[in-house]
Amino acid sequence: MEPLKFTVGIDIGGTNTKLGLVDSDGHLLRRVNFSTNPLLSFADYQLLLTSALVEVTHDIPREDLLGVGMGVPGANSKTGSIPEAANIPFLTEIPLQSVLTKQWNLPVFVAKDANAAALGEMLFGSAKGMDHFILLTLGTGLGSGLVINGKVVSGSHGLAAEYGHSVLVKNGRSCNCGQRGCFETYVSATGLKRTAISLLAKSNLQSILRDIPPNQLDALKIAEASENGDEIAKMAIKKTAQWLGLKMVDLIVLTDPEAIILAGGLSKIGDYFLHTVRESLDKKLLPMFNGKVKVVYSSLGSDDAAILGAASLVMNLKN
Amino acid sequence: MEPLKFTVGIDIGGTNTKLGLVDSDGHLLRRVNFSTNPLLSFADYQLLLTSALVEVTHDIPREDLLGVGMGVPGANSKTGSIPEAANIPFLTEIPLQSVLTKQWNLPVFVAKDANAAALGEMLFGSAKGMDHFILLTLGTGLGSGLVINGKVVSGSHGLAAEYGHSVLVKNGRSCNCGQRGCFETYVSATGLKRTAISLLAKSNLQSILRDIPPNQLDALKIAEASENGDEIAKMAIKKTAQWLGLKMVDLIVLTDPEAIILAGGLSKIGDYFLHTVRESLDKKLLPMFNGKVKVVYSSLGSDDAAILGAASLVMNLKN
Repeated sequence: MEPLKFTVGIDIGGTNTKLGLVDSDGHLLRRVNFSTNPLLSFADYQLLLTSALVEVTHDIPREDLLGVGMGVPGANSKTGSIPEAANIPFLTEIPLQSVLTKQWNLPVFVAKDANAAALGEMLFGSAKGMDHFILLTLGTGLGSGLVINGKVVSGSHGLAAEYGHSVLVKNGRSCNCGQRGCFETYVSATGLKRTAISLLAKSNLQSILRDIPPNQLDALKIAEASENGDEIAKMAIKKTAQWLGLKMVDLIVLTDPEAIILAGGLSKIGDYFLHTVRESLDKKLLPMFNGKVKVVYSSLGSDDAAILGAASLVMNLKN
Repeated sequence: MEPLKFTVGIDIGGTNTKLGLVDSDGHLLRRVNFSTNPLLSFADYQLLLTSALVEVTHDIPREDLLGVGMGVPGANSKTGSIPEAANIPFLTEIPLQSVLTKQWNLPVFVAKDANAAALGEMLFGSAKGMDHFILLTLGTGLGSGLVINGKVVSGSHGLAAEYGHSVLVKNGRSCNCGQRGCFETYVSATGLKRTAISLLAKSNLQSILRDIPPNQLDALKIAEASENGDEIAKMAIKKTAQWLGLKMVDLIVLTDPEAIILAGGLSKIGDYFLHTVRESLDKKLLPMFNGKVKVVYSSLGSDDAAILGAASLVMNLKN
């Protein structure tokens, strides 16, 4: 039997940075998290990241560490650089892969976060055995990973699967990317919160959400209020699910996937959300697709998928 | 030198059926067209199709005919059957590939029309040498063909690239597919006509279009009126181009193509249309894609692309 080798998977999100130590059988052995403060400089972030890497690998002999895979929002999967990180300003224009390869003296692979997570789903999660599927991660933003013919699609410039910046509402909500009306400003944890706040303004219904400062409001609090019968919270979740269903129609008629897999914070708010997504989708879908495409939550939990996916960038260089 | 062999490419459209004799070097030698009457029975259509096939191949020895490739709207590229042909009712549920293989005693290959056309563009047209592009054919309906990593994407059930049935306007115009607000009810030759008629109702501007019975109105008459300064015609073209630009944003952020190629009737209405599409697209596109994706008219002319593409289904079985 060969001795175990290890890789580190890193998932950089707009809210948290998560590192995991993964063995060559795909077991996630240990995790370290720290919060991603958008006001940091890249140099400061580099220090935090390096110390977390040391922490997660402290007892692993250097020669047993195969490399580090990173999933980063907005990363160019071909070059390993970040042309424009809408939610993590200090990463914009950073050639992350080459900078960290040099600093850590280890093989480092960088891919778009949702592409890494899609790879994780395909190898270890809900998409095991699937050749055609789409992963949507509904967190701070909306990430997307597209798998066609068994390969994660990176596109002609390494920029594919930025579906969070498709257009949902012409001239709609301002997006961190500089555009307006992007899908992720409506369908994401942040989008749900914006929808709830907008409903608080439009409606005169009583709501527990009126007692929470907007800066402290989040998807889980809205889900909790909805479960307690709060009408505003319910409406906010329903609208979000309907928008998602509508945009899924476009994804399905274009790519004919076996499944659309939902991960991230919004996938934790329960079955009412998933049920409403499905209903909205079925209402608008071209009849020939009826009953053909599954919509499921990630079985891994988005955190694990993202870390395992990032780690598998090291093992699975073909993707 | 080997003796020349021949294939027949057939493009079945909602308005016309076009057959072409193609040699093994990809030259389109001869064409036969007849109009696709949606009121026909399949048996009647089969007779017309067979007699056109005989006409286009009359002087070709049977042993030099390699087979027939067909591009058909709504075809399932995996099974060669037509689950639902929205604009050609008599084809619905016909297992075209097996029926015609048997009748003609020739190898017959059936693919979705726009998938065949995309293959034609890749082998002989504007997409020569490209590994990632999207073809949109703007005719009676809106067909789409998606090429990723050098392969026409057929999806998990053979139904991919039905982007004409993505959602443009929730609860919008009635579509032949049974849904409402489909992209092709706005962006296609038929869509342009519907937009012009709707503008005639909304506006009180003078317009030459008011002298044409709706049943005789078509995209070329609207383009002609627009060139002669007709405001309604101009507005109709502008709105159509803007809608197209908006939906292209979604295609680009999802698949990161090298180019989007426009073919079909609407691609013949001139540079004003293309220019307005580009403007609308650039206004809403995620900044990291700026200047990266070409938008061009098909260099083949949509008819040739469709026929050559269909013919190449026989030669290029991998796609």
